[in-house]
Amino acid sequence: MSAPSSKSALPPGGTIGILGGGQLGRMLALAAARLGLKCHIYAPEGDTPAAQVSDAITYAEYDDTSALELFARSIDVVTYEFENVPRDAAETLARHVPVRPSARALEVCQDRVVEKTFLNDAGIRTARFAAVATLQDLETAAARIGLPAILKTRRFGYDGKGQTQLHGDSGIADARRSVGEAPAILEALVPFDAELSIIIARGLDGTTACYDPARNVHENHILARSEVPAGISDALAADARAIAENIVNRLDYVGVMGVELFFIGANGGELYVNELAPRVHNSGHWTMDACGVDQFEQHIRAVAGWPLGSPERHHNAVMQNLLGSDIDAWQKLASEPGTAIHLYGKGETRLGRKMGHVNRLSPLGG
Amino acid sequence: MSAPSSKSALPPGGTIGILGGGQLGRMLALAAARLGLKCHIYAPEGDTPAAQVSDAITYAEYDDTSALELFARSIDVVTYEFENVPRDAAETLARHVPVRPSARALEVCQDRVVEKTFLNDAGIRTARFAAVATLQDLETAAARIGLPAILKTRRFGYDGKGQTQLHGDSGIADARRSVGEAPAILEALVPFDAELSIIIARGLDGTTACYDPARNVHENHILARSEVPAGISDALAADARAIAENIVNRLDYVGVMGVELFFIGANGGELYVNELAPRVHNSGHWTMDACGVDQFEQHIRAVAGWPLGSPERHHNAVMQNLLGSDIDAWQKLASEPGTAIHLYGKGETRLGRKMGHVNRLSPLGG
Repeated sequence: MSAPSSKSALPPGGTIGILGGGQLGRMLALAAARLGLKCHIYAPEGDTPAAQVSDAITYAEYDDTSALELFARSIDVVTYEFENVPRDAAETLARHVPVRPSARALEVCQDRVVEKTFLNDAGIRTARFAAVATLQDLETAAARIGLPAILKTRRFGYDGKGQTQLHGDSGIADARRSVGEAPAILEALVPFDAELSIIIARGLDGTTACYDPARNVHENHILARSEVPAGISDALAADARAIAENIVNRLDYVGVMGVELFFIGANGGELYVNELAPRVHNSGHWTMDACGVDQFEQHIRAVAGWPLGSPERHHNAVMQNLLGSDIDAWQKLASEPGTAIHLYGKGETRLGRKMGHVNRLSPLGG
Repeated sequence: MSAPSSKSALPPGGTIGILGGGQLGRMLALAAARLGLKCHIYAPEGDTPAAQVSDAITYAEYDDTSALELFARSIDVVTYEFENVPRDAAETLARHVPVRPSARALEVCQDRVVEKTFLNDAGIRTARFAAVATLQDLETAAARIGLPAILKTRRFGYDGKGQTQLHGDSGIADARRSVGEAPAILEALVPFDAELSIIIARGLDGTTACYDPARNVHENHILARSEVPAGISDALAADARAIAENIVNRLDYVGVMGVELFFIGANGGELYVNELAPRVHNSGHWTMDACGVDQFEQHIRAVAGWPLGSPERHHNAVMQNLLGSDIDAWQKLASEPGTAIHLYGKGETRLGRKMGHVNRLSPLGG
């Protein structure tokens, strides 16, 4: 099997490699199957949600160069379901096959300081921030940014892990300890009225397709619900789109990206970018039932070099994550009219674990 | 793993066995995955469309009793994607796990004489017919039914295979030879104005859910297109539903059934049943993009003992099969707005082979 030239589309029957075997990989694999494309999952853990629905699986660590080389030779293009793909792994793969989104996208999105610097350079508002390497840096940053503020590790944080809120000077040393000694970032608190996100795709040919913004509700730092429409003005929705387009165009990005936003209602409404996810995103799961082409198929289309589909929405939707024992209500959920169920095939139910989600649909304008 | 009791629902994580590895099995497996259910495919051929997206595969013949026994022990319930499941295989499996739809449904739908007798007994119109075992039977039948008529094998026909049209007495012996010496049926030609079909599901609890009828266009005896709405009156659509409900209730059926109908416009409209398919049906593929719960998920829900979903339609749809080299237009099709693509992952393109389908959507009432 030979790698496609960098700008040609992967025909049906081709194979997409996916790093990561979780629910996002699973839903990508299901979308790829609809298009007649095969998936080969690469993941360190066995019996993953994605492996259950994929044509081939490699169980190996991300630093296993020979496994990565073999994997690369069996696929036509590679993508990933999580942003913490080790740089070396991406480089090894890129010697054999296109890696989409690119190494540059990973570099920007893996590090909160690099990400916010990139955004500010692009003229996009973020929380004020400062890089923190030492306790002294932290004291200086706290004085400059003001408290309360949030101290986060620069890398590898998700779902509220690796972060702590700083309320007063007395807690500074404790806060530093609580996120470990890793390089960190201090971020000003944004007094937001709502958390939004927007899912955008950019194709190999540079075209973009943007879904409607969603309003997200987090509980215990984990996404609980996404609602579309988001209840913001058309002008603000257009702003959100423009921000997302600016980001993906500057990165020459290929694939789906989730852009998390803070919304402040005062002064006619302002948007701040909180975080970028260079992948399909939990807050885009509503697209599975409310749009003709969902974020998963859109990502597959983009990384396979296919034309993007229309992101048009044909229903209003509320996505609710099924966390932990929420899944026990599956029979009740299955009997709700207008509710679409998506379960991830995870064997073990753990507190707060994402076991599935439902999309509750209602007519447009309803 | 123990078989569920006959009336309990199979929880997420359970495994559905599917006999047959073609595109219908593939789309069933994709639907099962959405519900967190695993699939184990049993098929005599390797690298099938269904195997690419399923958790487990057994490659064995349908008369391999020990393979069937092993298969049955690894699954919770078994279903099939084709009606010609050998009776012995169904019986072997039924000793271990529920077989849904039941052996009775197979018995009725595998034999055109049994099927039409069942339908007429239920008060449902079919073409006039006569069983044909010998050349003399055929002569008698031709005299009684009149010519032209169609001679078909009683069993194993599909897509126009195993049938021939009889125009005059002189062709009788030739016709008999052309369908082989197998038991046959002579059917009167129904002077239909359109071919319709209706897809119905019946749950383990006896509830039914019926999709809107589709108008089907065949070319060279193979389904080319299905259009919904079918362009018939509400009264006639209600008749079609009543026929389908009558059939599945009489069979105590569990699963999705495709009911093929002939429509005659004269006398205010009349419906004849042409054929029953005790499985998901090509003419129901439009449900994949035009309904919240499609025929595949509906079948999985039914055989797993889940509540049925709503069969409500949110778009008008035209399904077009991609036969043979039609699939070469995939890039053009992928760039059509409002067109959903479904490709089956078949390696080899052959003349007339079903390689995929597209659903072209338009707004309700449009």
